Amino acid sequence: MPPTELNFITGNKNKLSEVKAILGDIVALQSQSLDLTEIQGTIEEISKDKCRRAAAIVGGPVLTEDTCLCFNALKELPGPYIKWFLQALGHEGLNNMLLAYEDKSAQAVCTFAYCEGPGHEPLIFEGEPLGKLCLLEVLLILAGIQYSSTRAKRMRRWTRRRRIRYLIVVRRLRS
Amino acid sequence: MPPTELNFITGNKNKLSEVKAILGDIVALQSQSLDLTEIQGTIEEISKDKCRRAAAIVGGPVLTEDTCLCFNALKELPGPYIKWFLQALGHEGLNNMLLAYEDKSAQAVCTFAYCEGPGHEPLIFEGEPLGKLCLLEVLLILAGIQYSSTRAKRMRRWTRRRRIRYLIVVRRLRS
Repeated sequence: MPPTELNFITGNKNKLSEVKAILGDIVALQSQSLDLTEIQGTIEEISKDKCRRAAAIVGGPVLTEDTCLCFNALKELPGPYIKWFLQALGHEGLNNMLLAYEDKSAQAVCTFAYCEGPGHEPLIFEGEPLGKLCLLEVLLILAGIQYSSTRAKRMRRWTRRRRIRYLIVVRRLRS
Repeated sequence: MPPTELNFITGNKNKLSEVKAILGDIVALQSQSLDLTEIQGTIEEISKDKCRRAAAIVGGPVLTEDTCLCFNALKELPGPYIKWFLQALGHEGLNNMLLAYEDKSAQAVCTFAYCEGPGHEPLIFEGEPLGKLCLLEVLLILAGIQYSSTRAKRMRRWTRRRRIRYLIVVRRLRS
């Protein structure tokens, strides 16, 4: 059964309103701010671990989000460690790290993770800039639709209105 | 009671023989290789967390070690994240990160953590290059001597032979 309520783990009001704008029609979105230690590893490992622990603490379905800054010249680093680099070096220091390279491009990558509840394996919604497409994939799960990358890709081309209408209908049919 | 046996958590034979050369006279040093996930945070937080979990797994006293590479121009980063940077960028890439700075200096910092057993708070032996002075402080604990930074500082000036003799005597008196 897809959840009717979902806890979005964030202390950031802007993030919450962005996510509410996308998921708010399909699920009662609550937010909770948890101070969760993050592990070291790949973006996927870090997101899954955090989401798993959040679900254990909340005792129900949770959505977590991680934002990384990946410099292409630095093989996607600092990536998940950007927080520490930004704190210590500031924007200027981050730019300085790229002085040796012509390619100064960076991507801000948002990764969402969804966990049904304690003991469940989190699902990862592949990080991409801004994270809006990830949230679309979260929508599929919330509507109780089996996740498929083909379906998610097709839906990415739809208008927001069409997506929501579709998901509401599916949800009604299934509940 | 100070332990008579100690598990040094490492998969690295060189590290084991270095530590054995310093601690081997005072305690039966065993080694175990555990694949422990590290958290993000300060060097102290990361070392304590790892040591605490190692003690829980081993079920007895453990010694863990962390080596960081801290670039002075980068405010001691990559620090505990050096593994990921070295893997992705290699030595040349690490050097490139310093191109904007005149100061190319770096410190390899070893931090040791000792935990008496499951549920005990780990003690941190402040990181410094090569970690030999840290191990000296570990020796004090193993000999059942209340740790004091003054005593550790005084002992740092002693020869290895004098330190070991002193610690063996103290240990005999207390056991």
